[in-house]
Amino acid sequence: MRRIEVGGAQSYAVEVGAGLLDTLRVPERHVALIHPTDLPAGFVTRVQKALQPAVTIPVPARDDCKTLEVLSGVLSRLAGANIPRDGAVVGLGGGAATDLAGFAAASYLRGVAFYTLPTTLLGMVDAAVGGKTGVNLPEGKNLVGAFWPPRAVWCDTDTLGTLPGAVFREGAAEAFKHGLISDPTLLDRVLSPDFRPGGALLEGTLADAIDVKAGVVTRDLTERGERAFLNFGHTLAHALEAVTHHGVPHGDAVGYGMHYAARLSRALGGADLTGHTRAFLTWQQPAPLPPVSFEDALTFMARDKKADADGVRFVLLRDLAQPYLTRVPEDVLREEFSGWQQDLHDLNLLT
Amino acid sequence: MRRIEVGGAQSYAVEVGAGLLDTLRVPERHVALIHPTDLPAGFVTRVQKALQPAVTIPVPARDDCKTLEVLSGVLSRLAGANIPRDGAVVGLGGGAATDLAGFAAASYLRGVAFYTLPTTLLGMVDAAVGGKTGVNLPEGKNLVGAFWPPRAVWCDTDTLGTLPGAVFREGAAEAFKHGLISDPTLLDRVLSPDFRPGGALLEGTLADAIDVKAGVVTRDLTERGERAFLNFGHTLAHALEAVTHHGVPHGDAVGYGMHYAARLSRALGGADLTGHTRAFLTWQQPAPLPPVSFEDALTFMARDKKADADGVRFVLLRDLAQPYLTRVPEDVLREEFSGWQQDLHDLNLLT
Repeated sequence: MRRIEVGGAQSYAVEVGAGLLDTLRVPERHVALIHPTDLPAGFVTRVQKALQPAVTIPVPARDDCKTLEVLSGVLSRLAGANIPRDGAVVGLGGGAATDLAGFAAASYLRGVAFYTLPTTLLGMVDAAVGGKTGVNLPEGKNLVGAFWPPRAVWCDTDTLGTLPGAVFREGAAEAFKHGLISDPTLLDRVLSPDFRPGGALLEGTLADAIDVKAGVVTRDLTERGERAFLNFGHTLAHALEAVTHHGVPHGDAVGYGMHYAARLSRALGGADLTGHTRAFLTWQQPAPLPPVSFEDALTFMARDKKADADGVRFVLLRDLAQPYLTRVPEDVLREEFSGWQQDLHDLNLLT
Repeated sequence: MRRIEVGGAQSYAVEVGAGLLDTLRVPERHVALIHPTDLPAGFVTRVQKALQPAVTIPVPARDDCKTLEVLSGVLSRLAGANIPRDGAVVGLGGGAATDLAGFAAASYLRGVAFYTLPTTLLGMVDAAVGGKTGVNLPEGKNLVGAFWPPRAVWCDTDTLGTLPGAVFREGAAEAFKHGLISDPTLLDRVLSPDFRPGGALLEGTLADAIDVKAGVVTRDLTERGERAFLNFGHTLAHALEAVTHHGVPHGDAVGYGMHYAARLSRALGGADLTGHTRAFLTWQQPAPLPPVSFEDALTFMARDKKADADGVRFVLLRDLAQPYLTRVPEDVLREEFSGWQQDLHDLNLLT
C-alpha cells in the first residue's frame, strides 16, 4: 500500500492499494454514497457494508451524470435524507461520478465533508486529486463547479481488474502526461506490459503518477501558476470532446491532444517529443476520431476555460519535464493541426 | 458616505451612501450584470452606463430566482457571453437576486470575481455582507450554495427611496436583530421616524447595522462560532417561510421569529426582551401570519440547516447583546409557541 500526502490549505492523504473498499472508515455519522449505475454491484455493496450510508444515490453512467439536472436531483436526495452539516458525501466510481459527487458536497449546505473512491485509472490519476469538482453545461465541459478538496482518497487497485482494456488504456493518458511534464521515468513504465490490472508495475506507477499531481496541487491549490501545466494536451482534448459531443472518451482525447501539443512544442523550437506521444497513441489504441475541422476545433479551444481575455493559451514542452505556458499564433495552430491529422491518418486513427 | 471594512481571508469594503450606482468601477474588463425583472429600469441603466457589462441577465423577481433552474440559465448565459475566468459577475437587486448572482459567480468556471449592489434594506444589512450565496431546494431554503465573498459591496441609499414602505420595514428586521445581539443603540434608532429613505438617521443606522455583521464575519468566516449568533430569530423564521411556501417575506418572518426567540430566552432564565420584539412587530406591521401548527413548525425547525445531528439549536439572549447557543427542550418550544401565537393574536397579526 502506498500513501501520498496532498498539502495545501486543507491537506489529505491518497491511499493506493488492494482491498481498500472493505477497510475504509470515515468519522462522520451521516454519510451519503453516490455511485454510477454501471458500477459492478459488488463495489457498492462492499462500501455500503464498510460505511453504512444513510442514503445511497445512483447516478447515470459516465458524463451523463455531469449535468445540473442530475446535480439537482442529488441535492434533493441529500436534503430528503436529512444529511446534516456535519455529514459527509462519498463519491464512488469514475471521474465523472466523483466530479459530480464532489460538487454536490461543495454546494450542499454550502459545503460538507467529501471523500473519493475512484474506480478507474483516469479517476485515480486525475480526478481524485486536486479538489476540482463540477459539471458540464451545454456550452462546454466543466464550466460549473468548485474547488472542494476531499478529506481522503482511496484508490483500490482491485477495482481496476473489472475495467475493459480500452477503459484502462484510456485512463493511462493522464499518467503518461505526468511523465511528460514532470517524471520521465513514468513513460516507459506506462507502456510496459506489467502496467496492467494485477501487473507488477501497477501500484508503483499509479502511485508515482498520482504523486506528480499531488506535488503540483500542494504547491498551487487554485490553478494560478504551475497547476496549469497539468493541462498539457487538454486544450485540444476538450475541443475534440465538445465537437464530437463527448463521442471521444476523455483519456482518448487527451492522448490525441498530447500529440498535437507535442507537435506545437516542436514547431515553437522545443525538443521533438512526438515520438513519445506517437508511441503512446500506438499503445493506447484510442477510439478512432471522426472528422473534425480546424475551424470547429479552434472555436472550442478559444472558448476553453483555460482561455483568458487575450486569447487561447497552450501548455507546451521545451523538453521532457520542462513545461511552459505560452500563446500560439493561429497560423501555427492551423499548420500543426493539419500535420496532426496526417499523423492520425498514418496511425489509422481517423474514422 | 460611510466605508466599512470586512476582514477575513479575502477582505473587502462596503460603501454606504447616495449616488453610488453612477460612480462604481470594477477592474475586470468582462462583466456580467444580473438583476431581477422588477427593479426600476433606471437602476439597471445607470449601472450599465457605469460598468458597460458584456451581458445583462434579468432573473425572476424575489425568491423565484433562487432555484437551480434559474441558476442553470444564468450559467449558460455567462458561458454564451464568453465571460472569462478573469471576468466578473455583478449582482444588482434584493437579497434573493444577489444570493443567486453570488452563487453563479462562485460556481461559474469554479469561481469568478463577484460584486454586490443591494437595493433593499434587507439586502444591504444581511445578504450583501458575509459571503453566503445560494439558492433554495424544494426541500428548504438556502440548502445549496457557497461561501463566496464579494470583492466590494455598494449600498446606494438612494435606491431605498423607491421601495414600498412595507418592504423597507421588512428589511429593518435584520438591523433590529443586530441591535439585539450586539449594538443596543440601534434599537431606538430603527424605530425612529428618522430611520426612513431620505431620513436623517438612515445612513448612520444602516452603516452601524452593517458594521455589526461585518465584525462578526471578519472574526468567523465560515460560521463555526460567533457567526451563528446572526441566526437569532431565524430558526422559526425559516420554518414559517417553509410552511407558508414563502408566503411570508423573510424580514417579516424574522420579525416573528425574533419575538419567539425572545420568549424562549425569557423562559430559559434570560432577561425579558419581549417588550423590544413586540415594539418592533408593532412598528414593522408585518404581513399577517396564516395558521401554522406547532407540529409543522417543529418539523421544519428540525430540518433547518442550523440543526445538527443532535437536534435543533437555538440562538437565545441572556440579555441585550449577550447571545448564546443552546438546545431548547421540546416542551418549552411547544409552550412558548402557544404564547407567541397568543401575542400575535393580541397584536392582530394572525389572519
